[in-house]
Amino acid sequence: MDIVLPNFLEKRAHLSPTKIAIKTETSSLTFGQLFIRSKELAYKLASLRIRKGDYVSIYMENSLELVELIFALKNIGCITVLHNTRLTVDELAYQVEDARSKIIITDEEKSSLLQERWNNSFVYSFSAINNTMKYEEVPIQHEFNLSDTDTIMYTSGTTGFPKGVKQTYGNHYWSATASALNLGIREDDCWLIAVPLFHISGLSIIMRGVIYGMKVVLHTTKFDPVKVNRVIRSEKVTIISVVTTMLTKLVDELGDGSYPASFRCMLAGGGPVPLPMLERCYEKNIPVVQTYGMTETCSQIVTLSATDALSKIGSSGKALFPCQLKIVVDGVEQVPNSPGEIVVKGPNVTPGYLHRANFDDGWLYTGDIGYLDEEGFLYVLDRRSDLIISGGENIYPAEIEGVLQAHPDVVDAGVTGVENEKWGEVPNAFVVLKSGAKTTQEDIMNFLYDRLAKYKLPKRIMFVETLPRNATNKLQRRKLKDLLPQNEAN
Amino acid sequence: MDIVLPNFLEKRAHLSPTKIAIKTETSSLTFGQLFIRSKELAYKLASLRIRKGDYVSIYMENSLELVELIFALKNIGCITVLHNTRLTVDELAYQVEDARSKIIITDEEKSSLLQERWNNSFVYSFSAINNTMKYEEVPIQHEFNLSDTDTIMYTSGTTGFPKGVKQTYGNHYWSATASALNLGIREDDCWLIAVPLFHISGLSIIMRGVIYGMKVVLHTTKFDPVKVNRVIRSEKVTIISVVTTMLTKLVDELGDGSYPASFRCMLAGGGPVPLPMLERCYEKNIPVVQTYGMTETCSQIVTLSATDALSKIGSSGKALFPCQLKIVVDGVEQVPNSPGEIVVKGPNVTPGYLHRANFDDGWLYTGDIGYLDEEGFLYVLDRRSDLIISGGENIYPAEIEGVLQAHPDVVDAGVTGVENEKWGEVPNAFVVLKSGAKTTQEDIMNFLYDRLAKYKLPKRIMFVETLPRNATNKLQRRKLKDLLPQNEAN
Repeated sequence: MDIVLPNFLEKRAHLSPTKIAIKTETSSLTFGQLFIRSKELAYKLASLRIRKGDYVSIYMENSLELVELIFALKNIGCITVLHNTRLTVDELAYQVEDARSKIIITDEEKSSLLQERWNNSFVYSFSAINNTMKYEEVPIQHEFNLSDTDTIMYTSGTTGFPKGVKQTYGNHYWSATASALNLGIREDDCWLIAVPLFHISGLSIIMRGVIYGMKVVLHTTKFDPVKVNRVIRSEKVTIISVVTTMLTKLVDELGDGSYPASFRCMLAGGGPVPLPMLERCYEKNIPVVQTYGMTETCSQIVTLSATDALSKIGSSGKALFPCQLKIVVDGVEQVPNSPGEIVVKGPNVTPGYLHRANFDDGWLYTGDIGYLDEEGFLYVLDRRSDLIISGGENIYPAEIEGVLQAHPDVVDAGVTGVENEKWGEVPNAFVVLKSGAKTTQEDIMNFLYDRLAKYKLPKRIMFVETLPRNATNKLQRRKLKDLLPQNEAN
Repeated sequence: MDIVLPNFLEKRAHLSPTKIAIKTETSSLTFGQLFIRSKELAYKLASLRIRKGDYVSIYMENSLELVELIFALKNIGCITVLHNTRLTVDELAYQVEDARSKIIITDEEKSSLLQERWNNSFVYSFSAINNTMKYEEVPIQHEFNLSDTDTIMYTSGTTGFPKGVKQTYGNHYWSATASALNLGIREDDCWLIAVPLFHISGLSIIMRGVIYGMKVVLHTTKFDPVKVNRVIRSEKVTIISVVTTMLTKLVDELGDGSYPASFRCMLAGGGPVPLPMLERCYEKNIPVVQTYGMTETCSQIVTLSATDALSKIGSSGKALFPCQLKIVVDGVEQVPNSPGEIVVKGPNVTPGYLHRANFDDGWLYTGDIGYLDEEGFLYVLDRRSDLIISGGENIYPAEIEGVLQAHPDVVDAGVTGVENEKWGEVPNAFVVLKSGAKTTQEDIMNFLYDRLAKYKLPKRIMFVETLPRNATNKLQRRKLKDLLPQNEAN
């Protein structure tokens, strides 16, 4: 039988009506107020003929309004499709069409850009909806079926075509409680969001806030280590989610200072934290909990506790309590220290991709390569499909290659990540031109500029004679690094 | 799709192998050791032909061995039937037969009594199993399906015939996480069990211990307030589950003393805590969290936080995060302040009774009467079927009445609870004898003595001419109190 829970925010508003739910630089709402706001907003959305079961696209930066909107859509029973705001309009269009969204809701500043492409009955700015006098009392969903899809986020795979990851109400609930069984829940907990809500790392904090009854501090501007460190003190923040580049900036900015004793966890995702940084954190008494997760696992699935951080350098830890993990090669589970594909299972794992068949048996083949040590700690060796993680954003080489190959003068293209001090990694493109073509690197860059989100743009384009391909003509991306000038290869 | 989690204890042993899982007066085990013990024991049980899907009855007092056994049976995939050790052999026989148990496992001291009734291949002492050299390696269940029944506990309803309440793996997991969302989870948490493991109040602590990775202190002797108060200090206990009578004894024993700052919760079940006691606790800074729950809800379903304790005297609080609550009369949900039957729903609620049809729609009609105030706080007015709660044990009048009516000289019988300073309530029996019968109260007591657990024995038997029955001849138990001498009626 399907499991049914009360509407998360409605229930939380009932249990903790006067507790602060969310605080931004300029305002804050209690759980009671947030629910009332989300209900009013639901009625306004209903006046646009938004109904239960509709897909609604959101293309918005972090804001209190975005949080209200996310819960308003749950009140109606809509499926919320959260898009990366760094996407170009073309990239957005692909996802919106794939999701079969009924409307797009965006920030005021972005609305005119989108309205150039779509008409006024498809693109709405948040403020247009919020300022309307129209109001239609649709039934509020008092219960959530845990099997129902709540949110959608797009990721690209090996093919380069983005797919919508379904995150059910159950995925969110299980993810939140799995995290709680690892990190605990304290009455005074306060989680700071300095990552985008259109990424699962950000959205999952909002969900935990409501499920735990925990105050969340939301940063609505570009990541600023000075501001974050100040707010950690002033708001008595206990936990913050970071990627390695953010961690570095925060610790640099902290200088000789330290965090208050109430600060208890730096949850670090997006690749292992390097040893020197861990040692600095250890000296400064900053508890770093490393984690491995993805959109498909609705945030964390494997974590390394702060106590194990130094003895298990480079490890992502063990699978959370409700989760399982194995290493597989050709369908065979591997013994310790033998690398293979990382395969995970758990009630926080997506049932499948949007408008595609669901997974069969609950095991998700991540495409990432890793091994387990004798004690069962996971070491990730290589991210799926040569995934490039740049400043916390996932970049899929195949997607950039696809766009490069669409250029009339390009015969072949390959993309790989190269180390970068600031971003961790940045994409580097290798291009084979048609013989006799006069195209320059700048021409290619201009071509890409209109078609790819900025963070995906290669930092350099190198023209080469040929690309390393194996017997079956498959591009060997790892060998692309051999084409780099000697002093840059890593 | 069914939700599947890893074997709870195996997983916990993997995550926290060296952490103390359980500690008694004389010994302790880490999670790693407890899992190894439970695996060895599983293989010993397997040598008795115990297999996956078998029902196994346990008639044991609290002990480390009982905890090992509970997890050993999960390793095999058995359904564990936990019986109250205060039952008479006849009462036990009824339950064992109803459950279709394959064997009964009991303490050494009780085994000869049971072996008088059953043969040696049906009753085993724990030590006989533990000391065997036989060993059969059956498959260990590495996964638990949350829909599968894990444990069974018997309760009597309006009919007086005990029914087995199915508690699934999911019920236990959801109950544990629901409690965590209310009380929080701290790294240093330690929960003391001074209630029987054959009651859900005790078993649920063992389950939370494994799910949270939390140390549990298990008392294996009769409740002793001196010892409990000493252990709260020496073991840095943070939470203890009590019934009102225990709370009174603990606070009395504490005298002018106080609990250490680490002690954070007195979880009080089995009826509301009286105002004077709450005020004493408040003065002594003892946080009392009142709760309403039953075997069918796998422990707590409604709780009142310590902060609301004094402003909401007599209330049981609000339904836990994943749970719902309504007040119903003739199928109609009631407005605030109108009493009716308490109806609950949640993933911790039993799917139904053993070997009987499951409930339809997830709503459990508790039979208890109560109302909600304007803010949604529950006030319980009357326990189901005039349930008598005596020192934490549930006593069903109908069950005692059934036994009384089996006496050849008894024409009619009614049982009700009367207030008692020591036990909260005790049963009081009203008996109508055959005209001319010479039977004495003592004769009746002797008759009951062989047939009822001691705690169910009426404290007094009164012979009366007639019993209050309504038009449809239904016994009006509440009116029985009018038959008491004036100065005793309450």
